[in-house]
Amino acid sequence: MSKLENSLREVIAVFRQYAEKKCKKDTMSKGELRQLILIEMADSIKNTKEKHIIQKILKELDDDRDDQIDFFHSVVKMTQVLKTTE
Amino acid sequence: MSKLENSLREVIAVFRQYAEKKCKKDTMSKGELRQLILIEMADSIKNTKEKHIIQKILKELDDDRDDQIDFFHSVVKMTQVLKTTE
Repeated sequence: MSKLENSLREVIAVFRQYAEKKCKKDTMSKGELRQLILIEMADSIKNTKEKHIIQKILKELDDDRDDQIDFFHSVVKMTQVLKTTE
Repeated sequence: MSKLENSLREVIAVFRQYAEKKCKKDTMSKGELRQLILIEMADSIKNTKEKHIIQKILKELDDDRDDQIDFFHSVVKMTQVLKTTE
């Protein structure tokens, strides 16, 4: 299995780990995604060059914490967080 | 850096590697994505349990090979390929 395949598997596994807390598989609540980012992306939050973008993302997820978000839109948010460290 | 952060970085790096062949960063052509899948996801293609889904994805990418596709829609396609191995 290639590095790409392993990496995609890992992202899916982490998503499911947080989504499955409430027995769902394909979506999670925005509150769950917020927790995932706070815990699994702690280094990015610590090393960000754009703290205000992270704060905005986390606030949005907190404001709508009961709304559902699917895998791909979760990847969008995670990538937005990660890119603030580049 | 967490496994999630490293995995996301790897997916972004592979995307850019194929997208940058034509000096773009945020999009690639569907033909480039087809190449990426054929080369970087060869194990998934070999081990798929649903060959017809893979063939359909590859055919669609080939039919519209000059159309552009962004990072997130590329991740959708890659994940569709990967999930046929589950």
